[in-house]
Amino acid sequence: MTSSLPSPVASPRTVHALLPQVLAQCESEQKAAVARLIALLRIPSVSTDPAFDGEVRRAAEWLAADLKSMGFSAEVCKTIGHPIVVAHHPGIGSAAKTAPRVLFYGHYDVQPADPLELWTSPPFEPVLVEGKEGTRVVARGAVDDKGQVMSFLEALRAWHAIAGGPPVPVTLMLEGEEESGSRSLEPFMHEAKDQLAGDICIVSDTGMWDANTPAITTRLRGLVYIECTIHGPMRDLHSGMYGGAVPNPIQVLADIISSFHDQDRRITVAGFYEGVDELSAQTKAQWESLGFSDAEFLGDIGLPSGFGERDRSSLERTWSRPTLEVNGIFGGYIGKGAKTVIGAHATAKISCRLVGRQDPERITAALKAHINARLPAGCRAEFELHGANPALSVRESSPCLTAANNALEMVYGCKPLLIGTGGSIPAVGSIKQILGMDSLLIGFGLDDDCVHSPNEKFELRCFYGGTKSHAALLGELSQLSRT
Amino acid sequence: MTSSLPSPVASPRTVHALLPQVLAQCESEQKAAVARLIALLRIPSVSTDPAFDGEVRRAAEWLAADLKSMGFSAEVCKTIGHPIVVAHHPGIGSAAKTAPRVLFYGHYDVQPADPLELWTSPPFEPVLVEGKEGTRVVARGAVDDKGQVMSFLEALRAWHAIAGGPPVPVTLMLEGEEESGSRSLEPFMHEAKDQLAGDICIVSDTGMWDANTPAITTRLRGLVYIECTIHGPMRDLHSGMYGGAVPNPIQVLADIISSFHDQDRRITVAGFYEGVDELSAQTKAQWESLGFSDAEFLGDIGLPSGFGERDRSSLERTWSRPTLEVNGIFGGYIGKGAKTVIGAHATAKISCRLVGRQDPERITAALKAHINARLPAGCRAEFELHGANPALSVRESSPCLTAANNALEMVYGCKPLLIGTGGSIPAVGSIKQILGMDSLLIGFGLDDDCVHSPNEKFELRCFYGGTKSHAALLGELSQLSRT
Repeated sequence: MTSSLPSPVASPRTVHALLPQVLAQCESEQKAAVARLIALLRIPSVSTDPAFDGEVRRAAEWLAADLKSMGFSAEVCKTIGHPIVVAHHPGIGSAAKTAPRVLFYGHYDVQPADPLELWTSPPFEPVLVEGKEGTRVVARGAVDDKGQVMSFLEALRAWHAIAGGPPVPVTLMLEGEEESGSRSLEPFMHEAKDQLAGDICIVSDTGMWDANTPAITTRLRGLVYIECTIHGPMRDLHSGMYGGAVPNPIQVLADIISSFHDQDRRITVAGFYEGVDELSAQTKAQWESLGFSDAEFLGDIGLPSGFGERDRSSLERTWSRPTLEVNGIFGGYIGKGAKTVIGAHATAKISCRLVGRQDPERITAALKAHINARLPAGCRAEFELHGANPALSVRESSPCLTAANNALEMVYGCKPLLIGTGGSIPAVGSIKQILGMDSLLIGFGLDDDCVHSPNEKFELRCFYGGTKSHAALLGELSQLSRT
Repeated sequence: MTSSLPSPVASPRTVHALLPQVLAQCESEQKAAVARLIALLRIPSVSTDPAFDGEVRRAAEWLAADLKSMGFSAEVCKTIGHPIVVAHHPGIGSAAKTAPRVLFYGHYDVQPADPLELWTSPPFEPVLVEGKEGTRVVARGAVDDKGQVMSFLEALRAWHAIAGGPPVPVTLMLEGEEESGSRSLEPFMHEAKDQLAGDICIVSDTGMWDANTPAITTRLRGLVYIECTIHGPMRDLHSGMYGGAVPNPIQVLADIISSFHDQDRRITVAGFYEGVDELSAQTKAQWESLGFSDAEFLGDIGLPSGFGERDRSSLERTWSRPTLEVNGIFGGYIGKGAKTVIGAHATAKISCRLVGRQDPERITAALKAHINARLPAGCRAEFELHGANPALSVRESSPCLTAANNALEMVYGCKPLLIGTGGSIPAVGSIKQILGMDSLLIGFGLDDDCVHSPNEKFELRCFYGGTKSHAALLGELSQLSRT
């Protein structure tokens, strides 16, 4: 033990018996925990924009220092991109010698904050606001993923305060590139395989069913993200002199984007649905019983009805079906007013969510082929890949999942739902593949948290519940034996 | 006469006989003329962007001062938008009492300079560069339209130096909104109808056939310019949480853009081709005899072949056929790297070139209807109109056209070609409609001048030829009688 905090108040043998005290400690620390979260949110660690590189590093250093303060050995590790924070604690008590070794994964980088003008307060000046669920904190990264990372850091802090450390061996791996393709993560895991070894990974980057009902996510979509620039004439042209006689890259791009879906909103890219399975009758029935409200899901974002693959529910569309969306487009004159120009090029940022056994590399190649096949003479396409990872189904029948079920029920008074999510967490696939570990996806976000949007927020009651849930989960895991 | 320049060297009666001296004066003033043009080009009078409002005004004041220095009464007239410079000279000699009264129209505003990074020198710091036609001046507005405006100002200056003024009554109307829809021009012309009255309008905003062959443009396309924003979800969404289940405004917009043309690249907007006539056999034969080279036209801009309405030549496509082009598009995340967002809205700037008797208002309404009919539930379109004016054919059988033919032949040693142009000069229609005047479109640009593009340039030999041509034209017009 290295810390200046109180020494263990109980013998190692009885460490699990301290759980009620640990949960009480979580509650008494809530105000201080919010202050710490706000300090982290003040750091604009936008990983996709090189202008913020220094801030990304600052966030990593902040976390390493915080982990050291609770008895962890912590290091800001160099990578080919943004640094990865790795921290270790051997665990307290004899159970720590046989209990599952836990790897916490999270990310401290955030999405860009634009469009800035739609924020009601500056994205990196967190504010506490009252809402229908009580107080919330509003800031970029509030829930994705700084608030969730801090929920398990606060759980570890409570264990440290009461027992001198966590009841199981704990490693943390906090990356700074989740929002920009995680390109350093896999090389780093290969390199640091030994020190990252563990039995179960806990990831807190998903959502609850609602503010009262916890959830464990057992189904994740994969992601292919490709940026495509169509080049046409060698320079911008006067649309009066050349209009109607030359290929306009914006229109070529629009034709291509339009060609991606058919009338039934099925994706037309050749081979796209290879490896996509229909839901089992059992899963379908289970999902139907969830009482998901399309009207509420869509009404929250101002839509009267859904729009997507024909004869599918919104849950199917977002949990079990692959997608192709254009996340950004630009070309020609985009300033105020009119300019009669034919731009020399036009760009689209295109992402596909993958499910089942869809192969990211084959999908990437098929997308490129689809685009290249639709270029008129004189046009060419340039591609930049921003990420490619497969979908994942998390194994539902492990003792760790049972431990998580118990922990969440202890905190929330009801069993968590086992759900899917439309989002992608590339790290989960890499952790399985490189480190051989399953992941437990236990998150505390809500659907209306405005993830990736202006006015992102995290409900403090979710933050508090998350903290207690992680604390309880560590206690439950200490009762298990490594397998 | 107000000027401090030399007093008339000839009696009014013999003013036309001074033409050779005036042409010589144009030649001896070339160096000084270039310096004046450069001074005007240094003023970034971008009319479409309010940030440059002060500079637009400065350009107007510069021109008024220059006109006063050559004996004109000149005024910077207030409008609902950018000012219009109006200047008058009663003409020298007895012929001025009966000769056609000339109205020069031009514009002193320029297109935005972006993309700035593609300029080899700053757009508002003019440089002289050697090229295949000799020395050229490179700057935004070099040819469109400041260089051409200065070509007739230099002609007037030469007449002033030699004869004490032009040989015909001259009015100038120089506007500052041509590149942003000319919204003040028509109201101003209605208001100032009397002082703008004249017999023939001379417009210098078009091109030569090539650097050795002058041209008079007798066919102009009209323009409808509309900005369309598709609104979908009420806020930006996480594409993982919502992708595949909601309408994505970028994709809705792409579908709409793609729907504007059919397989034969004909425009599908209902009623679009009403008022569009096929070329007469005579005109078609005349155009075919021009020896226009598609390979050169397209090769200059890096294209192996044309792209447009099926079974039409490039000349037909740009001179006689209507078009629909997207001049700009933006939506979602347009920064560097990846962001998995579904944007709340997406915008396209769309312009149509009109020909024949196409009605700009009907085309505008048809465009809106076409777009509105293609919106999925939950999406709406917002429109902003940036201009709407009809096409124009200039009467080819007037004594003024003969005078222009003679003037250009005198300077270039060959007859000018009578051509069409793909561009639009809204003022020409308004001048006909409100002031009842035909226009002579005599310009000195070349196809490779990069109008509206980075590195816009004007060949000095075209500038000099233009100056002499305008000087000669004024002399020729003084031989005619008002009708």
